[in-house]
Amino acid sequence: LATLPFGVFSHSSTGGGARRIGVAVGDAVLDLAAVLDDAVFAAPSLDAFLARGRAVWSGTRVRITELLTDRRHQGRVTPHLLPRSEVALHLPFTVADYVDFYCSLDHASNVGRIFRPDAEPLLPNWRHLPVGYHGRAGTVVVSGTPVVRPHGQRRPPGAEAPTFGPSVRLDIEAEVGFVVGVGSPLGDPVPIEAFADHVFGVVLLNDWSARDIQAWEYQPLGPFLGKSFATSISPWVVPLEALQAARVEGPAQDPAPLPYLQRSEPWGLDLSIDVALNGEVVSRPPFATMYWTADQMLAHLTVNGASTRTGDLYASGTVSGPDRAQRGSLIELAWNGAEPLSLADGSTRSFLEDGDTVTLSATAPAADGSRLSLGEVTGTIHPARPSAFFLDGRVS
Amino acid sequence: LATLPFGVFSHSSTGGGARRIGVAVGDAVLDLAAVLDDAVFAAPSLDAFLARGRAVWSGTRVRITELLTDRRHQGRVTPHLLPRSEVALHLPFTVADYVDFYCSLDHASNVGRIFRPDAEPLLPNWRHLPVGYHGRAGTVVVSGTPVVRPHGQRRPPGAEAPTFGPSVRLDIEAEVGFVVGVGSPLGDPVPIEAFADHVFGVVLLNDWSARDIQAWEYQPLGPFLGKSFATSISPWVVPLEALQAARVEGPAQDPAPLPYLQRSEPWGLDLSIDVALNGEVVSRPPFATMYWTADQMLAHLTVNGASTRTGDLYASGTVSGPDRAQRGSLIELAWNGAEPLSLADGSTRSFLEDGDTVTLSATAPAADGSRLSLGEVTGTIHPARPSAFFLDGRVS
Repeated sequence: LATLPFGVFSHSSTGGGARRIGVAVGDAVLDLAAVLDDAVFAAPSLDAFLARGRAVWSGTRVRITELLTDRRHQGRVTPHLLPRSEVALHLPFTVADYVDFYCSLDHASNVGRIFRPDAEPLLPNWRHLPVGYHGRAGTVVVSGTPVVRPHGQRRPPGAEAPTFGPSVRLDIEAEVGFVVGVGSPLGDPVPIEAFADHVFGVVLLNDWSARDIQAWEYQPLGPFLGKSFATSISPWVVPLEALQAARVEGPAQDPAPLPYLQRSEPWGLDLSIDVALNGEVVSRPPFATMYWTADQMLAHLTVNGASTRTGDLYASGTVSGPDRAQRGSLIELAWNGAEPLSLADGSTRSFLEDGDTVTLSATAPAADGSRLSLGEVTGTIHPARPSAFFLDGRVS
Repeated sequence: LATLPFGVFSHSSTGGGARRIGVAVGDAVLDLAAVLDDAVFAAPSLDAFLARGRAVWSGTRVRITELLTDRRHQGRVTPHLLPRSEVALHLPFTVADYVDFYCSLDHASNVGRIFRPDAEPLLPNWRHLPVGYHGRAGTVVVSGTPVVRPHGQRRPPGAEAPTFGPSVRLDIEAEVGFVVGVGSPLGDPVPIEAFADHVFGVVLLNDWSARDIQAWEYQPLGPFLGKSFATSISPWVVPLEALQAARVEGPAQDPAPLPYLQRSEPWGLDLSIDVALNGEVVSRPPFATMYWTADQMLAHLTVNGASTRTGDLYASGTVSGPDRAQRGSLIELAWNGAEPLSLADGSTRSFLEDGDTVTLSATAPAADGSRLSLGEVTGTIHPARPSAFFLDGRVS
């Protein structure tokens, strides 16, 4: 009841399995269109609801809480609490633009140390702006969608020419995504103070990454096919309003950022993420350590006048804490293969194998001192397309 | 009549200025919904028409040609030929994902020579794959939209810390964009042979670039705010079918690309682009020189299983030929400020000034030996937001 995350579900009771909007309540999904007199909840996505803005988001939350707690509504509400096991969950909103940042000091430092061992781990711009880039919005998929191992070009160490085949360095990135509800017009930067007027809530996000494809392609214009084959998000969007008790100051920043990036409110979030590989927790990245906070990301994203739209999704970048057991990607956990992870079943991992399932889950402090759940995002690696599909390396 | 490009217009005659679909015919726009019995043309965007696929695109073109050439239809058609001067043109389709490639050997070499004078101009991957990255779909705007000079961080030469302010190195990139009509599902690479089953047509595209913002931000994840403030496209989408006479073999490629990138048909396009600055043609980039062709770009974009959608837009990257007068960006034309352009009015330019208007236009060979027009994309630089908007560098 403290969380009330929004999602899109279908169920045999909702007219032939049509999609509509629900909130998760314990082990049930409340069919909002059935209990709130508003057609916006009969939509197959959150888009129109997201666009209505902060006052409506907040009022809806109050109304749902009343319905669920006031015994007078019980008879009306109970029939529309559907068991979670009976519903299918779908992509909750139409992803407009997808941006991926790189906001963890520990992650950026680890990657720098792995790939440029003799140089400063952080590039000169890193402490001055939240580094980010655009990803592929069309391949953002909902939790549970199979992740097919991608083919691509990669250059073996020491070779001059690339080879072609399935990625052999498939990785995860444990991230938190922010969902824009109310957009902003072209030309108008969003002041850092206006963050919560624009961003509705958060999702958990796994930015699947083919490190071999990425390493060969990314200079000079950044990651492309090494990331664009799939990005998974949790089906439930947790409103910022549910995370009031999780708000913390972001880490101190040195040097002080330029004025447009200076924080006005604490928008660090004390989320504790679990990274589970085949059911075994292999890492616990702490989101509160992120150097750049979500309000800074939005202020930066728009300072050049770029517009935003309902459904824009921007992610934090891999969440890694200072300790080894807090790293949010396999390339860091296994230090680029030098220190493979040992799993409980006796096997080891440097990168993902076919059949591996990765599940990110998270909790946050609730107002009553307990912890609330942000749900999970999961995905299983399916084998690459058979080689017949790539007959002699040609797509057939 | 040889071109018949598709666009979206509004006119006082079309029900209060509602948007609908038209084709350009000389100095007129034919209101398709009025002459073809199909509601798809009464839509405010080309999206649904694009999704119908190649047979419908082709059949529609045949039908329009009949209507315009068979005198028996004249009475029915003439009232719906609206003067171009009376219509407003709009963004012709909903941009799904926007990808920008980097396919000109001369452009990539020039940029390499400017920024890494002592190294090989091309990076090792360049001849093996069409380098590309995702741009911001939400800031793709139609020709004529003002381009406001963006603010951002840039680091002056020799300085350690960045400063903040309006870009002082605002540039253009003359490009050709390809519009996906029929998408492809997640997991399925598009074979290079299937290019024309997916791509409907081309637009002219100006990828406005703030070189100072870009130079400071782009490592290691690529361009972001230096590009995302605006990307302009022409209002008319020229069907591939209109460009049959412009098709040429692409340049020979050495080394031979991997099999999935090997061309099966000539999809080079002999388009001649004019870059006009305040009405004066300053460059004539030849699109036929592009090292990677559009069929190769689509095959590469999807080889990792990335899905495509109706409205996906991918651009060629700056089109530059081998000669100085064929360069498609100011940074190349003025060699990073070392050789400013001299304009007819006696002024010089290294980068764009407020009030400058840049217009890209293009022609292509037609089947009858004449040349057909691809129309134009234009934009004027408006001054940066007044400093009051950025009070003490803070967005207010």
